[in-house]
Parts: sequence; C-alpha cells; structure tokens
Amino acid sequence: VKERRLIAELLRPLATSRAARGLADDAAVWQPPRGRELVLTHDMLVCGIHYLPNDPPGDIALKLLAVNLSDIAAMGARPAGILLGLGLSPAEDDAWLDAFVAGLALGLARWALPLWGGDTVSGLAHAVLGLTAIGSVAPGAALSRDGARPGDGLYVSGTIGDAGLGLAVARGALAHDGYLLRRFRLPEPRLALGASLVGVATAAMDVSDGLLIDAERLAAASGITATIDLAALPLSRQAAALTPGDVERLERAAAGDDYELLFTLPPGTVPPAHTTRIGLITAGAGLTVIGSDGRPLVPPRLGFEH
Amino acid sequence: VKERRLIAELLRPLATSRAARGLADDAAVWQPPRGRELVLTHDMLVCGIHYLPNDPPGDIALKLLAVNLSDIAAMGARPAGILLGLGLSPAEDDAWLDAFVAGLALGLARWALPLWGGDTVSGLAHAVLGLTAIGSVAPGAALSRDGARPGDGLYVSGTIGDAGLGLAVARGALAHDGYLLRRFRLPEPRLALGASLVGVATAAMDVSDGLLIDAERLAAASGITATIDLAALPLSRQAAALTPGDVERLERAAAGDDYELLFTLPPGTVPPAHTTRIGLITAGAGLTVIGSDGRPLVPPRLGFEH
Repeated sequence: VKERRLIAELLRPLATSRAARGLADDAAVWQPPRGRELVLTHDMLVCGIHYLPNDPPGDIALKLLAVNLSDIAAMGARPAGILLGLGLSPAEDDAWLDAFVAGLALGLARWALPLWGGDTVSGLAHAVLGLTAIGSVAPGAALSRDGARPGDGLYVSGTIGDAGLGLAVARGALAHDGYLLRRFRLPEPRLALGASLVGVATAAMDVSDGLLIDAERLAAASGITATIDLAALPLSRQAAALTPGDVERLERAAAGDDYELLFTLPPGTVPPAHTTRIGLITAGAGLTVIGSDGRPLVPPRLGFEH
Repeated sequence: VKERRLIAELLRPLATSRAARGLADDAAVWQPPRGRELVLTHDMLVCGIHYLPNDPPGDIALKLLAVNLSDIAAMGARPAGILLGLGLSPAEDDAWLDAFVAGLALGLARWALPLWGGDTVSGLAHAVLGLTAIGSVAPGAALSRDGARPGDGLYVSGTIGDAGLGLAVARGALAHDGYLLRRFRLPEPRLALGASLVGVATAAMDVSDGLLIDAERLAAASGITATIDLAALPLSRQAAALTPGDVERLERAAAGDDYELLFTLPPGTVPPAHTTRIGLITAGAGLTVIGSDGRPLVPPRLGFEH
C-alpha cells in the first residue's frame, strides 16, 4: 500500500515525459539522441552509511541525484534521464516520502531531468536508495581516468574536505555550521565543468571517496605518478579555520563526499575558473604527497576503501 | 574490502565489453544501435521478500537477471546490457559471492549480455539486489499495456501458478518437487515470444504479481474489461495435481513470480506456440473471472499489491 501510494500519488505526477509512459508499462521507452554515445551509471545511498537517519528527506533525494550526476559530469556528459530503485523501511513514513519526493521534484526540475521509471520495495530494515542515471556525449569524447601523461598538471574543482567536516557537524562532533552541513548534504555535480573539460583534460574523475584515494586510482588507471602538493589544497574559509597544519590537511584530503572533479591538463593549458592546481603528473606509479615543508609525507589513510 | 574483492576479482573479469571500460571509470560509455528506441527498466530483489536466505546464490543472480529481462520481453525488446546495484549484508560471505557471480556469468553468457557497471555497498542488514536492464526495439514498436480492444482474445504463455507452489516447496510447506522449485527460483524471460508479438499483440505485459492482478492492470490501462475463464487456466502437470477445483485455480492465478507474458490478440490471429487463450476483452472496465460452472466468481485476492 505504501508502494502504491508512492507510485500513484507521488511519483507518477513527476513522470511526465513520454518515455515514462505514465509509469504504466513494464519499462520506459526512450529515443536516444542521434549521433551521441550514452553514459550509464548506477549509485546507491544507504541509510546509516551514506546519509544519517535524521537528514532531511528532501536533501537525501537531491544527494541521490547529485552523486549520480557527478558520475555523469566526470565523463563530460549531459544527463538525459533517470530510473529509481527505492528500497524502503518502516522509518520512511508518509511525511518522509512526501518530503523525499518534493526534493526529487526540485532536483528533476533543476537539472531538467525526466524520471523514466524504476522500482519500489518496502519492508526493508533500512532504506537503500538506488538511482540509474543516463547521459549522452559526443562519440569518443567521454572523459576517462586513464589518459594522464607525465608533465600534465593535476587540478581539482571547488574546495576539498567540507563534506567530511559537514558530516562531523551532522553527527554533533563539530559546532553547527550551515555551510559545511550543506556541503555534506547537498553536493553539487560539476556538470558544466565536466562538459567544458571534453577535448581539454587528459583524464578526469569525481572525488567521492577522498581526494587522496581517488588520485591514487587516477594514477593507477593512467600508469603514472600523481604528486599532490598539500599546501595547494583548496580549502573553504570554514575548513581553513579548522585546518591549522598538514595533519588536518591530510584529514581533509582523505574525507569523502566532496563530489568535486579531479582532472589533469597538458602543460600550458589555461585551467577553468574555480579550479586549483594541486600537483603534477610524472612518470612512475602511485601517489606521492608533499607536505608544506616540501618533503614527502606518508598519509595515515587515503579515503574510503571499497 | 569485500566490495573491492567483489569488483576487482569477481565482477571485472565479467565486464569484458568495451562499454564497461574495465569498471575503471565513473560510468559506462555505450554506442546505442542506430535507428532503435531504447527500453529501460530497473527491478530489485530483496532477501527475505523476493527470495529466501537459503536459495542458491547462483539462482538468485539468474533470477535477478530474469525478472528484469522479463520486463524487456514484455515490451517486445531485445536486451542490450545491464548495470548492477548490489547491497550486501554480512550473510553474503565469500562463498556466497563466488556462487552469485558464477550464476551471473552463466546468465550473461546465456543471454549474450554485457555487464556495463554499477555499484556495490556492504554493511546492510539484508541483501538488496538491484539491476538496470536496457534493451532496444524498432521505433514505435514497443508493446504496451494500453492497446487491448473489445473482441481481442486474452492469452498467456506457459503455465500459471508453478512459481507460487515452488515458493511453498522452498518454505517446506509442500513436498519437494524439483520442477516447481525451479519455476520459483529460475523464471524464464519470454524474450523470443515478446519479440514475436511486436506488430501482432494489441497489448502485453509480464505476469509478476499474479495473473489476476496483472490482468486487472492491463484492463485499467486499456480501458476495457478483461474476462478470464478459470477453466482455461494453463497448469503444469505438477500444478494440476495440486489444483482440484476453482478455489485452487484462484490461488494459482493470484500467486506471483510466474514471469509469463499476458497479451491480447485481435480476433482471428493465430496465437504463438506455447500460449493459451484464457479469456476475452469486452467493452467496460475491470476484471471478470468466470468459474468452471460458467458463472462469475469473486476472487478472495488478486495477487501482490504494490
């Protein structure tokens, strides 16, 4: 009954695209844009793991959209539509569902995204929220992690570590700070930046598990060494106030949920606005981190392992 | 660590298509077939709801594929690729994962399907397994639930109620029967039948929640009355032995998990092999069920409500 109300009263009014067929058929039917490749991703958010039970439901819906759109952005693609996979527990009551769907509606409108379909199941112990996002890109233009070359500069968008501090705020471990909390709950997929990197960046990915671990993955995929200059780490004013030295800088760079873009540019390329050069690509393998004193550091951890 | 082993050691060897990019990028990149529409679906299986904790993990993987391919079949489409969304609990240990992935590999090979990507999360209370399946169909050719017209015959493929009885076998409520158990654990997506119905059937859907409730949905979508003749219900030899009268026929027709196709054909159409005419479409609304004595019956339940 919960599923029926969710689908009939809340989701169907959002599924206005022709492709969704009013959520009345077994699947959506969509005409892909001519002469484009498709980019396909599926990411899940689990209550108690990726968000906190008391996070505002509307923010959770926006985050579910954002983490998937961040993958689309990292490929340099333009989003085209989504499918939802909502597994619900008794904790997601009518008020929760109303607020979740209101946030979903906001996000769909903001990113001009059609809801194509999906599945809902109730009776779980904790909510498990999945989303499939599909986007498109010019043939052969999709960005990849594997193209960084010696001599390239290593860049990151926005600021790093805010979301990790925002999680500490949400947990009550840090004093309330609206900015940091928003950065944890409402990440911003860098779609325009990703699209602007097509044909320019040699490699790109999004920072979801921690800058250091994600940079290590980019280095592994490209078969090069990525060297990060910790002194260059872009910090928000709020994060800088909580980051007196390299120990804290390493914590910021190993916290996840930034959803910024990490990318490499050939030497001489003018970097896009709101991005920071944080290091250099050289021949070799793995990640090197240089401290503020110019000497290599061994980080106690790199980020969230999967 | 569980997720890393699952991805690196078990799933990556299956992700051999170019589109999957070795599961190393943020998303898959796929060139859709020219001049085709895409059909997109996402269905979830939850441990304890859609399958039993002791079901063989390889069968669970095959069922996860099959229930999604059944939606592709119901649209008359040809499957093209999949994304996985695997939420795992501590119960899914190494042996479980090995067996699950072995079943997945079998299914991917059998249906010539590439694994494009997805997401894995561990630490859940119960496993929640999602799958996005994408297929293609000629433009405008996708089947729908809404085209049934007065005078059409109502047909169903295969036999009905076996899976419900197989669930009772799996729960120990019925004596062991390998055939019924297989029908519950290993549904067969009717892909060839679905494709053959394009341009022929006026409406089609798969039977997942129970023949009666699904027929009621087809009737609602088409704006007609669907009348089912209970005496015509196709039963396997095994189910027939457990179905002495209309009371049991109604149980078979309200049990879910059949994953057969329910469809309507204009008068005079020769039905495909292995399908049975079970009723008639007339002007009106809703579902009518006729008992063996030729009189209307009121079923105690129609199937699983969402």
